[in-house]
Amino acid sequence: MKKIDAKDLHQYYGKQIEFSGFVDNIRDLQWVQFVILRDSTGKVQVTIEKSEEKNKEMVELISNLPLESTVKVSGVLMEAPKVKLNGMELIPESIEVTSKSLDELPFTYKNLEGVNLDTRLDYRFIDLRNDKNLAIFQIQNKLVQYMREYLYQKDFIEIHTPKLIGAASESGSEVFEVKYFDRKAYLAQSPQFYKQMAMASGMSKIFEVAPAFRAENSNTNRHATEYTSFDVEFSYIDSFQDVMELESEMIHQSFSKVKEEMGDQIKDLFGSDLIIPTLPFPVMSLEEVYRELEERYSYHVEESEKNDLTTEAEKLCYKLSKDKFHHEFLFVTNYPAEKRAFYHMRDEKGILQGYDLLFRGVEITTGAQREHRYEEILKNAKEKGLSKDVEFYLEFFKYGCPPHGGFGIGIDRFTMLLLGLPNIKETQFLFRGPNRIEP
Amino acid sequence: MKKIDAKDLHQYYGKQIEFSGFVDNIRDLQWVQFVILRDSTGKVQVTIEKSEEKNKEMVELISNLPLESTVKVSGVLMEAPKVKLNGMELIPESIEVTSKSLDELPFTYKNLEGVNLDTRLDYRFIDLRNDKNLAIFQIQNKLVQYMREYLYQKDFIEIHTPKLIGAASESGSEVFEVKYFDRKAYLAQSPQFYKQMAMASGMSKIFEVAPAFRAENSNTNRHATEYTSFDVEFSYIDSFQDVMELESEMIHQSFSKVKEEMGDQIKDLFGSDLIIPTLPFPVMSLEEVYRELEERYSYHVEESEKNDLTTEAEKLCYKLSKDKFHHEFLFVTNYPAEKRAFYHMRDEKGILQGYDLLFRGVEITTGAQREHRYEEILKNAKEKGLSKDVEFYLEFFKYGCPPHGGFGIGIDRFTMLLLGLPNIKETQFLFRGPNRIEP
Repeated sequence: MKKIDAKDLHQYYGKQIEFSGFVDNIRDLQWVQFVILRDSTGKVQVTIEKSEEKNKEMVELISNLPLESTVKVSGVLMEAPKVKLNGMELIPESIEVTSKSLDELPFTYKNLEGVNLDTRLDYRFIDLRNDKNLAIFQIQNKLVQYMREYLYQKDFIEIHTPKLIGAASESGSEVFEVKYFDRKAYLAQSPQFYKQMAMASGMSKIFEVAPAFRAENSNTNRHATEYTSFDVEFSYIDSFQDVMELESEMIHQSFSKVKEEMGDQIKDLFGSDLIIPTLPFPVMSLEEVYRELEERYSYHVEESEKNDLTTEAEKLCYKLSKDKFHHEFLFVTNYPAEKRAFYHMRDEKGILQGYDLLFRGVEITTGAQREHRYEEILKNAKEKGLSKDVEFYLEFFKYGCPPHGGFGIGIDRFTMLLLGLPNIKETQFLFRGPNRIEP
Repeated sequence: MKKIDAKDLHQYYGKQIEFSGFVDNIRDLQWVQFVILRDSTGKVQVTIEKSEEKNKEMVELISNLPLESTVKVSGVLMEAPKVKLNGMELIPESIEVTSKSLDELPFTYKNLEGVNLDTRLDYRFIDLRNDKNLAIFQIQNKLVQYMREYLYQKDFIEIHTPKLIGAASESGSEVFEVKYFDRKAYLAQSPQFYKQMAMASGMSKIFEVAPAFRAENSNTNRHATEYTSFDVEFSYIDSFQDVMELESEMIHQSFSKVKEEMGDQIKDLFGSDLIIPTLPFPVMSLEEVYRELEERYSYHVEESEKNDLTTEAEKLCYKLSKDKFHHEFLFVTNYPAEKRAFYHMRDEKGILQGYDLLFRGVEITTGAQREHRYEEILKNAKEKGLSKDVEFYLEFFKYGCPPHGGFGIGIDRFTMLLLGLPNIKETQFLFRGPNRIEP
């Protein structure tokens, strides 16, 4: 018999069914046992009358059953308005224990307040039994599903680029080294070069959702050594404006659909409204940002730091964006090029043809038009002292390569911000950081 | 102006448009120049009358333009039944060169016969300009899209498990070692343990599409050191029959949709019909397979080899499956457990509660019900001498874990078989093998 999900139970009133789940709770009263079963979609109450002779074995079984065991219950599902839990109860005819919990839980996952985060991560499979933690991944799944759906509607295709690479080329540092038979290999920090290779091969609209690896020994609330990167690249753009437009439309559409499906749940569990961002997203140049931060909030910063956003300025941008535009997103443009990767396009003045996208005061994307002209990209690479290391990459631009651009979003960080969570450790199925590579 | 795809051009007859693409071909005749432009969706002819004074500059430009450059053409699109290529032509008013091909192509990608495969892979971005090679990835994209869609319909969620792992636990060999700050880490061979962790955490229906890494020094036509694995796991199953049923339905549905959308293209380019497999897929036990191979095709094999399918037997299974069931797939069951991973469930007789799925005579999946009972899985791990290495994994089964099962499909290999291609190198965006980690 097919597993019935708790969320679909209301379709089975009056019917003989089987229901499987974890034993979430047992209330063993004088005349009756209430057993709450849980699956990933909800809960249901099983009611066992102790007085009935035929229930004797079941009563005995439940009396000795540890919570968190899993069972399969056969019985009749009754509509029962007086039952608080969804107004239904399952009257069992038989109960089969499909797995027995053998040990006391290492912590009470139902209330995680005060439980050490490391203990939670050590026992992540217990930690994820928490309603809210489970919901994080259900929501993240929908977010990615609808971002993907948007791109499919626009005829993008998903490609799968290698994570094992022959040279630590993109930045030189911060790359994990792999023992690859009798030589060295490295783990890709991003699919950047390969996304662009797809453009050179004429693929024109691609994306990829895949792990990215950063050997950064930094322990912040929003960095991880491995994370899931949602990368997009497309050809025949006129400028990086086209990239900003696509990204904001994608976010707008996916937020709308996530809200429709899970908005209530997000409000209940995380206490925050999912706000659908209006189009177009606001855009400010870096210079304008600093000017307004100074004027509005008296935020002063040394001239020498104004070639990038300070962390403090990033945070203030949330306030700025809300005050000025009533918006949670903000595109910041006109970065000076020298601080940025060599593959971003610049204009004649050295202004980067790209942007950072901030969401709730944290950078979630760097996007840009890429440099596709061989002479220019060679010059940029030389300036950074990279021309030797990226020889294979420079080849991509020798045989015709259309103008193109793209962006990447770390979905773990995006989910963290969306749900107002304090740490990326909460939004990774299994967090990876400098001091954590287990379980 | 938004890029118009070649496939959508017919919507713009009589209109002033811009069209961008690669210069696929130029025929420079006495009175006229025909320029064929190509994007990832098709081709269109640009016709330039040399006699017209206003065309002088364009004629000059085209005369000196290397093939494979990219251009943006502004002009009027005309319906032109006498034009062989899609019955239309673009009459240009201006042509902008957006990138110039600087070099002779290293090989003529339009006809790859006789071009060395390694040369093709060295210049993969040229190789992928070939119609057929581009189509491989468009088809693979659709295949994965529709497999995913099937699972979404069934309320599965996609999770993202770490590829950096702390212990080389699953098999001990064939794992890449990573320098992880001041310690060692490894690259996950499969998400097996983490898929099961999701079940222990109560997630109940999950999948993941992600890279998997195998440090096997084997150079066959169907192995790679990195490949894209489509992994599925779900709880509350009654037996591995449920897993076979889900997998075959998923394949059936995705094949149906791929055929509907791209069946003609597959036939044209690859000369083969995409056959939608009927449900249910045929199932035979290993013993039956050997008996019938002997009876039907006089295929004899030593008793000692009959605990697994030989490569030869695998191949013959294609014939067997077609002759006996008129089917291209075949589930083979009842493998003896000793040759299989310790986490597969066995029955009392030691028979594996799992299967291999063969497609056109090649194994594409191993699937099974997993052992979810702590005592049993501990016993199995001890038998293989693994109990120490997999301690963290064994923990998953101590606090209640529902019965569950799943499978994994390597999508590169799957695509290779689907399109009747000779080598997995053709179906990986960038192949990775013991001797190849570039570009």
